[in-house]
Amino acid sequence: MRVAVVGVGMTRVGRLVGKSIRDLAAEAGLKAVEEVGWEPPEAIVVGNMLSSLSEQENLGALLADYLGYRGVPAFKVEAACGSGGAAIAVGYSLVRAGLRRVLVIGVEKLTEAPTPVTTRRLAWASDADYELVHGPSFAGLNALLMRHYMSKYGVSREEMGSWAVLMHENGYRNPYAHIRKRVDLQTVINSPVIADPIRLFDACPISDGAAAVYLAAEGEARRLSDTPVWVEAVANATDAVDILSRKYLDRLEAAIRSAREAYKLAGIKPKDVDVAEVHDAYSITGVLGVEAMGFAEIGRAAKLVHEGRFAPGDKPTINPSGGLKSRGHPVGATGVYQVAEVVMQLRGDFPGVRVDAEVGAAQNVGGVGSNVTTTILRR
Amino acid sequence: MRVAVVGVGMTRVGRLVGKSIRDLAAEAGLKAVEEVGWEPPEAIVVGNMLSSLSEQENLGALLADYLGYRGVPAFKVEAACGSGGAAIAVGYSLVRAGLRRVLVIGVEKLTEAPTPVTTRRLAWASDADYELVHGPSFAGLNALLMRHYMSKYGVSREEMGSWAVLMHENGYRNPYAHIRKRVDLQTVINSPVIADPIRLFDACPISDGAAAVYLAAEGEARRLSDTPVWVEAVANATDAVDILSRKYLDRLEAAIRSAREAYKLAGIKPKDVDVAEVHDAYSITGVLGVEAMGFAEIGRAAKLVHEGRFAPGDKPTINPSGGLKSRGHPVGATGVYQVAEVVMQLRGDFPGVRVDAEVGAAQNVGGVGSNVTTTILRR
Repeated sequence: MRVAVVGVGMTRVGRLVGKSIRDLAAEAGLKAVEEVGWEPPEAIVVGNMLSSLSEQENLGALLADYLGYRGVPAFKVEAACGSGGAAIAVGYSLVRAGLRRVLVIGVEKLTEAPTPVTTRRLAWASDADYELVHGPSFAGLNALLMRHYMSKYGVSREEMGSWAVLMHENGYRNPYAHIRKRVDLQTVINSPVIADPIRLFDACPISDGAAAVYLAAEGEARRLSDTPVWVEAVANATDAVDILSRKYLDRLEAAIRSAREAYKLAGIKPKDVDVAEVHDAYSITGVLGVEAMGFAEIGRAAKLVHEGRFAPGDKPTINPSGGLKSRGHPVGATGVYQVAEVVMQLRGDFPGVRVDAEVGAAQNVGGVGSNVTTTILRR
Repeated sequence: MRVAVVGVGMTRVGRLVGKSIRDLAAEAGLKAVEEVGWEPPEAIVVGNMLSSLSEQENLGALLADYLGYRGVPAFKVEAACGSGGAAIAVGYSLVRAGLRRVLVIGVEKLTEAPTPVTTRRLAWASDADYELVHGPSFAGLNALLMRHYMSKYGVSREEMGSWAVLMHENGYRNPYAHIRKRVDLQTVINSPVIADPIRLFDACPISDGAAAVYLAAEGEARRLSDTPVWVEAVANATDAVDILSRKYLDRLEAAIRSAREAYKLAGIKPKDVDVAEVHDAYSITGVLGVEAMGFAEIGRAAKLVHEGRFAPGDKPTINPSGGLKSRGHPVGATGVYQVAEVVMQLRGDFPGVRVDAEVGAAQNVGGVGSNVTTTILRR
């Protein structure tokens, strides 16, 4: 049973004051439904991590009703920052299990709470009993990985900094991006320290936003769309949430496992991928993601970016959206943005940096690499 | 593709001081895996609503690792008090989509937070923008339904009170139950008012607990179990979260729709059901659930209970576990308890009130009837 993406929608990412979870989800979700001629979905899957900030659970029923589909099966899927990818995995399985049309919406509303509150809640992606209790922020945990990686592989500050430069160069041209601003290497490496060695420009912004992907079974897909994009594989994998109990700190094993499984299911190799969206919550996460996806050997990705690889025109082009660094990171929505962006690349209608692509991949990472979903798409 | 339950596990329900989410989930989850000879699951689905109280999201990865299955795909499914049922629906779909073995764990840890905090968080199941902002608790919203129902159908305080008497009579014999105590009708109807007309004994307790259900595809099921219980149907349906925008307040339309769809998929009628677990968060919810399942006409269920119907020996027997009222309500786990209990009835090894049953049903209700999952099981 083949499954296709037949519609996508997204809101601009940013500090969207006055727009609630339901406003954002409706804007993105209904755009996706509009793309299939307003054919109603048979089920709705919502990816979200922190609707607790809005004192609202039960998002499945809430959004089904608000979008105009009162009654249809609906629920929320959560896997920390990997919630969007996990929601795609569930939506895909619902179609494989027999449904014809499933709408997946990722949504997150973060910016209207005080930043310290949001920062604390984001750390709920780490282990409350073994990590959070000692006080580290989510940035602090990622900083440990970055320090270790730079030291082990002799990666310079300039090489790590090149990640942000490339992302902002791409995101500058993405009308949906949160931070549309070019930056030079000096700005990145001289920016304020957040959690040493993570500096301001190594970290993605905290964002609001929603994205949607309309999935359909094969026959239905051909009926609803002239440009279906085929979902070749969706593979989820997990790791220990607490990083101290892991075997390696220089790689994300769940990301490696998820990518390998996805490639196997799709019957392709990393070299077949034309465009990929990886999860650069921090520059270190982006670098480890590129390596997990098999686009660079372990220890090499930052150096390659510094040498000019993965920019538009290269194969694969990485994060033409600008990635989490520039497009932004509406946490539970990010994995859905990534898939929607790759779909638009494959259809040829992404409104920013465009890649001539036949095969695309998206990898969404939850926690410090503890819950990862890789999706492979083909036009 | 047929799907079976081949293993179940549960913790005692109650105020389980000192036991965290991971402790509870491991106890229930590993009991279920033990029942299949320690065959590892291929994926884990966690039903939970309020792990926010433990400052812990990312439960999928956390529990996969803690149970000893680091790496396997895992995520959390949330649908308010209907999270457990929704998790069963997702686990069932994963097997229908091609996985052979999926472990579904429902878990909730509520009792170590201050009661006003827990009460507020439970109201996150209602609509934050249209209900919560005005201050009603979750009990307050259900009280509106109870008042309307009693008035419209001329149901007496004694008739409504009979629900709790029956539940405590059943739960008294369930070693897993939170409140193992017989009560008489006078105690119920003279108990303190919580939110008029809901009195203390109309309301379920706030509980901790975890339950697990191990699902397997047909061939695998016969290999792993001599007593597989077949999942004939799982059907989820939603309704407006805010009750003010609904057409009816004397019925739960999502519960009716979910039950009808489940019966249709299973090819059975309400009269074929031998045993059912319904979601009596309040006595009114239980009564509306019995009516939604087609066991009584609208307006009649409380009167029938008062006349002695649905007790052990009757067909169907309702809530031999004691229901939410007596077994307790570990919110995101409740839907998994219900299915595990019905499975044990069908296998003949439930350690409390036992029903000689071939066909069983479980209905789990989220919000004030906004997210409902009905599961039909057959021995």
